[in-house]
Amino acid sequence: MASLISPGKPIPNDDLGLGLRTGPARGVNKDGSFNVRRAGRPLFRGYELYHSLITMGGFQFLALLFLGFLVTNALFAAVYLGLGMEHFIRTGGSTRLDQMLDAFFFSAQTLTTVGYGHISPNSHLVSAVAALESLLGLLSFALATGLLYGRFSRPHAQMCFSHHALVAPYRGITGFMFRFANRRSNQLIEVEATVSMSFLDGDNQTRRYVALELERSKINLFPTSWTVVHPIDESSPLHGMTEADLRRSQAEFIVLIKAFDDTFAQTIYQRTSYVADEVLWGFRFKPMASLGPDGSTEFRLRDVGAVEAAEGAQSRM
Amino acid sequence: MASLISPGKPIPNDDLGLGLRTGPARGVNKDGSFNVRRAGRPLFRGYELYHSLITMGGFQFLALLFLGFLVTNALFAAVYLGLGMEHFIRTGGSTRLDQMLDAFFFSAQTLTTVGYGHISPNSHLVSAVAALESLLGLLSFALATGLLYGRFSRPHAQMCFSHHALVAPYRGITGFMFRFANRRSNQLIEVEATVSMSFLDGDNQTRRYVALELERSKINLFPTSWTVVHPIDESSPLHGMTEADLRRSQAEFIVLIKAFDDTFAQTIYQRTSYVADEVLWGFRFKPMASLGPDGSTEFRLRDVGAVEAAEGAQSRM
Amino acid sequence: MASLISPGKPIPNDDLGLGLRTGPARGVNKDGSFNVRRAGRPLFRGYELYHSLITMGGFQFLALLFLGFLVTNALFAAVYLGLGMEHFIRTGGSTRLDQMLDAFFFSAQTLTTVGYGHISPNSHLVSAVAALESLLGLLSFALATGLLYGRFSRPHAQMCFSHHALVAPYRGITGFMFRFANRRSNQLIEVEATVSMSFLDGDNQTRRYVALELERSKINLFPTSWTVVHPIDESSPLHGMTEADLRRSQAEFIVLIKAFDDTFAQTIYQRTSYVADEVLWGFRFKPMASLGPDGSTEFRLRDVGAVEAAEGAQSRM
Amino acid sequence: MASLISPGKPIPNDDLGLGLRTGPARGVNKDGSFNVRRAGRPLFRGYELYHSLITMGGFQFLALLFLGFLVTNALFAAVYLGLGMEHFIRTGGSTRLDQMLDAFFFSAQTLTTVGYGHISPNSHLVSAVAALESLLGLLSFALATGLLYGRFSRPHAQMCFSHHALVAPYRGITGFMFRFANRRSNQLIEVEATVSMSFLDGDNQTRRYVALELERSKINLFPTSWTVVHPIDESSPLHGMTEADLRRSQAEFIVLIKAFDDTFAQTIYQRTSYVADEVLWGFRFKPMASLGPDGSTEFRLRDVGAVEAAEGAQSRM
Repeated sequence: MASLISPGKPIPNDDLGLGLRTGPARGVNKDGSFNVRRAGRPLFRGYELYHSLITMGGFQFLALLFLGFLVTNALFAAVYLGLGMEHFIRTGGSTRLDQMLDAFFFSAQTLTTVGYGHISPNSHLVSAVAALESLLGLLSFALATGLLYGRFSRPHAQMCFSHHALVAPYRGITGFMFRFANRRSNQLIEVEATVSMSFLDGDNQTRRYVALELERSKINLFPTSWTVVHPIDESSPLHGMTEADLRRSQAEFIVLIKAFDDTFAQTIYQRTSYVADEVLWGFRFKPMASLGPDGSTEFRLRDVGAVEAAEGAQSRM
Repeated sequence: MASLISPGKPIPNDDLGLGLRTGPARGVNKDGSFNVRRAGRPLFRGYELYHSLITMGGFQFLALLFLGFLVTNALFAAVYLGLGMEHFIRTGGSTRLDQMLDAFFFSAQTLTTVGYGHISPNSHLVSAVAALESLLGLLSFALATGLLYGRFSRPHAQMCFSHHALVAPYRGITGFMFRFANRRSNQLIEVEATVSMSFLDGDNQTRRYVALELERSKINLFPTSWTVVHPIDESSPLHGMTEADLRRSQAEFIVLIKAFDDTFAQTIYQRTSYVADEVLWGFRFKPMASLGPDGSTEFRLRDVGAVEAAEGAQSRM
Repeated sequence: MASLISPGKPIPNDDLGLGLRTGPARGVNKDGSFNVRRAGRPLFRGYELYHSLITMGGFQFLALLFLGFLVTNALFAAVYLGLGMEHFIRTGGSTRLDQMLDAFFFSAQTLTTVGYGHISPNSHLVSAVAALESLLGLLSFALATGLLYGRFSRPHAQMCFSHHALVAPYRGITGFMFRFANRRSNQLIEVEATVSMSFLDGDNQTRRYVALELERSKINLFPTSWTVVHPIDESSPLHGMTEADLRRSQAEFIVLIKAFDDTFAQTIYQRTSYVADEVLWGFRFKPMASLGPDGSTEFRLRDVGAVEAAEGAQSRM
Repeated sequence: MASLISPGKPIPNDDLGLGLRTGPARGVNKDGSFNVRRAGRPLFRGYELYHSLITMGGFQFLALLFLGFLVTNALFAAVYLGLGMEHFIRTGGSTRLDQMLDAFFFSAQTLTTVGYGHISPNSHLVSAVAALESLLGLLSFALATGLLYGRFSRPHAQMCFSHHALVAPYRGITGFMFRFANRRSNQLIEVEATVSMSFLDGDNQTRRYVALELERSKINLFPTSWTVVHPIDESSPLHGMTEADLRRSQAEFIVLIKAFDDTFAQTIYQRTSYVADEVLWGFRFKPMASLGPDGSTEFRLRDVGAVEAAEGAQSRM
């Protein structure tokens, strides 16, 4: 572990903005979210509403829409019932239930602007409430459908990462590497990778952060997969560490991928992390592509994490 | 103050584009807007309308929408009344008020395209006006609902800054620092900070601007908070100044934060400023995060400005 | 003119991508468009339609919308008439004109989905055509209203530039300068300027391009105005030139401004150019801002081009 | 071929992220798509649906919309028929076919919210289904019309490239060059070009990648065309190669163009490639522009690939 805090290697602390003093748990979850619980933030604020509605689950969102539709109609139905159903032209029955349901369905026909007209206002007061409801319907459906389409078209990366990172032979020395591919068929351009390591400093057990130099930090085109490699030469903070060292220092490798989505002309990001338990020693990645009979390359996405034993593997980086 | 205009330190003037000669007032307000009044700009121009409608208050916007709905209906009602209500199939009363209200509500049912049909055109002229009104309704509701959703989904930063900036011990020397956190739960990436100081030059009392070097000007991830630090070493324009110097030179620290909003794939900016009265000497920031029982980090947003007395504080930078 | 082609000053040719050999006319028009006529480009192609509809004049666009509404209704009315108006439930007259207008207005009520119902289909064939028309109406109004809102909300810079560029004293030497301000009240951030000169090379009268070094090419904040300055020192390609030299070489100064619109989170660009006739010698810009009684700065947009005679003006750069 | 693997020229392998070991076929197709077949990717996943709907052919998309409309109406018609057409107020006939078509057209009038009312619900159950259908109609038409407009307004580059790349005399040496122009009339700004060569390494027949240095890799304005040139000096990996060498090594030149679309404020990319068979030796590009009678420049897009024999052509680069 001494190599991590040797005087000759100035370690930029807090390089990621992760000003955390976490315990044994990981700082970045596998899906890229931060392992942080926010307290003191108001649960319901205007600026959070849009964010919640865009990011909540799809089923939850549709249920909320449906519920909002039911509740709004129930409220307007109550107003119409309060004004009296004698203010309507209608053909329905005269029981209380008939009146309530007619009021409810008239409301629904007004809110959606379908307006069949078999139930229609027969007094100015009801007409005024119905005009207001149709205005409200147009505005609230604009928000609902805007959100629906916004959710549908929201750009988001769908990289699939190898489940393990590897410590494997690399050009005569050893390299720390992982692989990822694009799960979607959109075209990604100018893909950039940043890898940082967080670890417990041997002396005072405070968590430190250090950026890892990559063999290559940007590629122009990304048709298939990219194996990101940190060469473990003498200048690497990993140099000389063993598998036990990695676990003892609770090392976590934090990955940030940035890319330009050519199909939708937007920049997207994705994060993930590897903890010491997710680092394999003595394996290498199997190829994901092979040449098809027609000369094109067949690419197997499911093999992104496929590994095989590597010769010449070392127990020390 | 001599340090500010010493010959060895070339000061880039007008570095921010704030070509202002303000008096004692601040150049940038606490909410990031500029303290400038624009004259000679036409009050109503096409290119200002969209901007006004997007940035006006929410209540004001909804009131304007409602007013527009009322006025448009009143105008079309006047046209229908002018043509004569005998051109309509209707079941309503025959008083003047009945006619006026029927005209108004027919207009509302046409503009919203709800079209119940219990009032409907019975002449070609009225049909033509109604066709025009429904076309106008579709187009104007498209603008209204587009604006409503545009306002709702407009990206904007919601950083909360510490109320005070601090002059506090920092790695053996003194540092000028402030802290900020993200109030929203959207994920911010690649956060950049720029800090400039504006001050009255001691000799000729003209306002000058100088950029302050930061310990770190960019962080990759921003899960919690960031304490931005300008180390006051010998090359700092603040070096050797006292609290009284700061006030006398009417110093203002102008902060520009840039970040990429990972949730919505957009770049956002936020500005703020600290004047001399908002700089505390001899305090340091209290931690905002603590380790929860389950190993995750709890982060208290309300503590972004919490300070405590610092040992070894100096009265001179 | 010798200074423009002196051997010590390698001039990057074609620096702007303006691979033009124009005659005396300017390459970039005052409004930033290129003085180029494109031939051989198909007049009507799918990928041009959206562009044309977004950039055409507002009155023209609305007229096109209205015309499209009339024509579509006329076409569907013809179909309904062809099928026979006896297939409708209607209360209108029986003359040919009555039938035609009823068909037209039924079409309008279907296309806009207002659907009063006083005219309604009474045969399956007419119902099928009407269902098709309402589907078409929803889709085409989606395009029309999308375009309407897209036009309304399209980001575009509204810089106003000084009408003249100046050759004026600047820090002991001479500078080439112009001034611009933001006409809109949106907040611009990180404003960048690029200035290039195009001129006829004295020897072979071919047009060359050279980038001009600026005193400052980027400002962080842009609350008021920015005077962009090219200092004419010995390394400047303008060094030693007279007003007559500028005109003889048909010099044109091409300006590209880039900014980030903080209000709408989008990057915007604006271009303009100054030809030799638009360069004033021996003047300087008058201030645009003055201190208001309440300490805020009043900024006069109309003074962006206001100049006054400068002392110490030279007839040679 | 020795020049390609000479020790003094370190060749960055895999520079483009094209981790492919293709055979004789090209890696990047003429239209910029990758010559890769993806296996193991689920054919139908939520995150692929939006992408497919945006990128499929226009006729296919409209057919899908129409089919969806038919199927949805057929399904709801089946529900209404199941409930019994006696639950409707209607004027139509009593045969089974009449009932089926009335149910179908009532559904269509509800889904599009046109709601004439000549067929209208006469029971609460039918009213409830109709309310649900109108809600579904509003939501699904929001997606359909959002997609329709999203397709219409999606930014995409429409560069047209010269069909051949040339090896031609260039400033005393030889250059590898191609030309492209913007087919659309939108304004492109800050256009950048990247050119890489992929080839079979003579020794072990594995495919290698090398970036080619360009005379200029970025231009600020792009009014007409740009001839991108790689000067073949001694440091070029092409230096000394003959036409036969190019073919034998199955060389492919991969082009990536990046530009900012000034009209729509979006960054766009376009790719293409040239294989050895598409490289002409001993020709040069003919001018695309000529001076019009009014002093403006006429630009012929169709001449982007026009070439003429070049004097002094060499058979070796």
